[in-house]
Amino acid sequence: MAKYAIGIDFGTLSGRALLVDVSSGSEVAASTLNYPHGVMDKALPCGKELGGDWALQHPKDYLDVLAYTIPDMLKKGAVDKDDIIGVGIDITACTVLPVKQDGTPLCFLEEYKSEPHAYIKLWKHHAAQPYANRLNDIAYERGEGWLERYGGKISSEWLFPKLWQILDESPEIYDAMDKFIEAGDWIVWQMTGNERRSACIAGYKAMWHKRDGYPSDAFFAALDPRLEHVVDIKLSRDIYAQGFKAGGLTRRMAELVGLNPGTPVAVANTDAHVCMPSVKITESRKMLAIIGTSTCDMLLGEEERMIPGICGYVEDGILPGYFGYEAGQSCVGDHFAWLVENCVPGAYFDAAKKAGVGIHAYLQRLASELQPGESGLLALDWWNGNRSVLVDADLTGMILGMTLATRPEEMYRALVEATAFGMRKIVSNFEQGGISVDSVYAAGGITEKSPFTMQIYADILNKPIHISGSANGSALASAMFGALVAGKANGGYDSIVEASAAMGKLKDTLYLPCVDNVPVYDRIFAEYERLHDYFGRDENSVMKRLKSIKKAAK
Amino acid sequence: MAKYAIGIDFGTLSGRALLVDVSSGSEVAASTLNYPHGVMDKALPCGKELGGDWALQHPKDYLDVLAYTIPDMLKKGAVDKDDIIGVGIDITACTVLPVKQDGTPLCFLEEYKSEPHAYIKLWKHHAAQPYANRLNDIAYERGEGWLERYGGKISSEWLFPKLWQILDESPEIYDAMDKFIEAGDWIVWQMTGNERRSACIAGYKAMWHKRDGYPSDAFFAALDPRLEHVVDIKLSRDIYAQGFKAGGLTRRMAELVGLNPGTPVAVANTDAHVCMPSVKITESRKMLAIIGTSTCDMLLGEEERMIPGICGYVEDGILPGYFGYEAGQSCVGDHFAWLVENCVPGAYFDAAKKAGVGIHAYLQRLASELQPGESGLLALDWWNGNRSVLVDADLTGMILGMTLATRPEEMYRALVEATAFGMRKIVSNFEQGGISVDSVYAAGGITEKSPFTMQIYADILNKPIHISGSANGSALASAMFGALVAGKANGGYDSIVEASAAMGKLKDTLYLPCVDNVPVYDRIFAEYERLHDYFGRDENSVMKRLKSIKKAAK
Repeated sequence: MAKYAIGIDFGTLSGRALLVDVSSGSEVAASTLNYPHGVMDKALPCGKELGGDWALQHPKDYLDVLAYTIPDMLKKGAVDKDDIIGVGIDITACTVLPVKQDGTPLCFLEEYKSEPHAYIKLWKHHAAQPYANRLNDIAYERGEGWLERYGGKISSEWLFPKLWQILDESPEIYDAMDKFIEAGDWIVWQMTGNERRSACIAGYKAMWHKRDGYPSDAFFAALDPRLEHVVDIKLSRDIYAQGFKAGGLTRRMAELVGLNPGTPVAVANTDAHVCMPSVKITESRKMLAIIGTSTCDMLLGEEERMIPGICGYVEDGILPGYFGYEAGQSCVGDHFAWLVENCVPGAYFDAAKKAGVGIHAYLQRLASELQPGESGLLALDWWNGNRSVLVDADLTGMILGMTLATRPEEMYRALVEATAFGMRKIVSNFEQGGISVDSVYAAGGITEKSPFTMQIYADILNKPIHISGSANGSALASAMFGALVAGKANGGYDSIVEASAAMGKLKDTLYLPCVDNVPVYDRIFAEYERLHDYFGRDENSVMKRLKSIKKAAK
Repeated sequence: MAKYAIGIDFGTLSGRALLVDVSSGSEVAASTLNYPHGVMDKALPCGKELGGDWALQHPKDYLDVLAYTIPDMLKKGAVDKDDIIGVGIDITACTVLPVKQDGTPLCFLEEYKSEPHAYIKLWKHHAAQPYANRLNDIAYERGEGWLERYGGKISSEWLFPKLWQILDESPEIYDAMDKFIEAGDWIVWQMTGNERRSACIAGYKAMWHKRDGYPSDAFFAALDPRLEHVVDIKLSRDIYAQGFKAGGLTRRMAELVGLNPGTPVAVANTDAHVCMPSVKITESRKMLAIIGTSTCDMLLGEEERMIPGICGYVEDGILPGYFGYEAGQSCVGDHFAWLVENCVPGAYFDAAKKAGVGIHAYLQRLASELQPGESGLLALDWWNGNRSVLVDADLTGMILGMTLATRPEEMYRALVEATAFGMRKIVSNFEQGGISVDSVYAAGGITEKSPFTMQIYADILNKPIHISGSANGSALASAMFGALVAGKANGGYDSIVEASAAMGKLKDTLYLPCVDNVPVYDRIFAEYERLHDYFGRDENSVMKRLKSIKKAAK
């Protein structure tokens, strides 16, 4: 009798459950629910307006995902709940919320419903940038050793800047919360009744280290005396490694989702880091790039290296026995979506409709007729700041080379190229730091839908690019972790490497660099690098000055 | 009995005749004809494709304008041809064509119809840039004194680079032409039978000087031995001052246009320089800005000053007794048109339609709700290169500050602001050179239609802005020159100052700088200046390198 594991991937806009055959990795059925509240970046449900750079979510949406997608998927797959051996989940991070001692989110309580700080701060909530800046300054001044693990800078997207923002802007919410917890850990808690915080998430997003733990209380006191004991008071020092069984489904949750009570649930993963085994990467020199609205790059290293400008590295954070290095771009597909929404004339939409293709496909078709360099355009991919290697959310976008003959498809191509240049900058930064990259493995919607984009990436990176064999890489990998916590004795696996070998997938398609394009892109990349440093490394901080004028004007 | 003069303004896309009451300047009737061939920038009428940066016109279109608009206008105005005392014309320059000894354009001859170099090179034909570059290098090396009169650089838009391009790329056309002549001078020749080349056009566009004449034969020989005697062989040293009577209408032309033979016709003017008297400027410190697809700035000075980066100055070139200084921006309204055509979603057009306004008005309405600096955007107004103060057609556009929240109306405003910053750069350059600017007089369609744009200009320039009282300033001023060549004895005037006093017009509207906006724009202008110099003055010539990669890619 076939056995199945469930992987649930909580994305930025929706949650998706995937039913996977444990022996083959075959994806039997799936079900998706768009979050009823979506991303709240303008106002709360009660109508209360949010400030600029805010991005919130509603925890009820995650519970709705569990309640809707699991039964729907089981029905579609016609699989019996007795054949489900384990469940894994993954989610965006750092996506974090304040809760009471029993796990009740503050925003569920009537008294806090109209308080923005009571909600989940989504990964792309950027309003904590001032706190990140101060935190970085203080850590740098104090010579905090852990800072180097994160490329020398903590992102405003991470846990402590977000928590500090709450303390500073809404001390009553800070006081009212008993715990501040990652949304993934909170979901696992809701499923199992156990608070089992994930080492992967804590390591990458909350400066936790396998041997050294969190930064010292003295450091937190230096930020704000009220933060001195923040780890013990609001977080927890109990951290659980990837692949650890958080517990079994509670009776209540089992009823809600239509599974058996006690079904094993793995500790939460982030949607990115979980992916590595889904493309069969179990060794170094192979970079996995999850390309979506933003991009996350992961790479295994055998040695510990301090590399400036990366997001961080966590020992055993991706696969056991390796240092898992992470870097990323905070805006990739969002660039193309922005262009399509704001800069593409109606005639293009009409023509796309007539051609029977989507607007992105239509623009890519036009843009693919251009040679590298033919548009004369060059952009910096900073519409949502820069995560690596500058780690600066206050940078903004730039495009140059426009003439009166410049067309939207040329701008589209320039934005695609800019994101590829951004990735090349990350790769060369890894290589300068002593971590080699021989080939790139790409996953995410764009990699599947856009050969145009992938070929440009191969040409600009001058590396072969493999493509994930699953459109649901995160959910597939989460299912592997579900199979792992079930264990071989129950039809699963006893190591993630075994699970990856059996259940991981790659497409046959391989993108190879085009020899004619490589030298042209080398020249343009040299221009990109120069402008990257000019605007990004304080030679001309015009972007930041304009942002401060903008804030004053509002 | 009222007397009338006719002014005919040959623009980039159409020609317009205006019937003006000589005593009051009242505009009695007008008629416009769009050029049947428009601007030829892709292909010749025969289908032959043109290279990049080419822009041609067809001389037949100008004759069509005369034949259609004058009779049409007379009919509309119900004015008898006996009451027409004189005609003046103005035109874009340098807009120049090769002709035979009798004035027949080469492109009228069957054998040259499919030869691009046989047509009129429109002012914005930029394919002669390599020739301008070489000419500038050689003039600089030889220490040619006249170079300083033109701000140290000759534009690719001017006569000699265009003529040299013909010689180099099509020696057979060069040999076949007996004369190379400005389109305005050619039209006057067609009207009167007399070749009477205009001092204004020769001074500003062909390096001619009232006392020194043209550059020396030795200079031209240094460019190319075949050019040694170019002035005597292809041009003429007979140059006629503004306000000179070129002759009377020939019998044939009089029949064609429905006027009396012998009706006096003034020597041609450029469409920009002619305007000064139409806004009653007859003294220094008042800058006239003609704001259209591009902008031309003119200023009278009492002293001779060498100012880098201006287009040039000509003694008596605008008004007698003054040095007429000229600077300009090669792309102004074209920026806004580019944005509307390439970067504005259909929903905006729908909303504009619903609101019953044009798309520009609609975008301006949205953009006017923004405070200065609120968009966070900054652009360099170089979509069509930079005329002043960098004199470099190879520069390209740039915009920075974009985030995922950036909207089209913000980009629209940023482009308007960029053109105003460009003008401020010109004004400050004049002032640094010792030519003061107390106030600005603005003419052109945008100044009339867009209070939004004019207020931004006033705020950014921090100067009061007066607005021309006529929507047809060039044609009105040309009519003044028609009245001038008629003379007081025939119901006209004996000086252009008298004509200006009687026939010139200003609107009551005066735009004053808003004190709250000035300091914000001062800060943003400082950023503009820094990027202007960074990208424009060889600190980072990325725009030029991308252009050369672009050329190689095509």
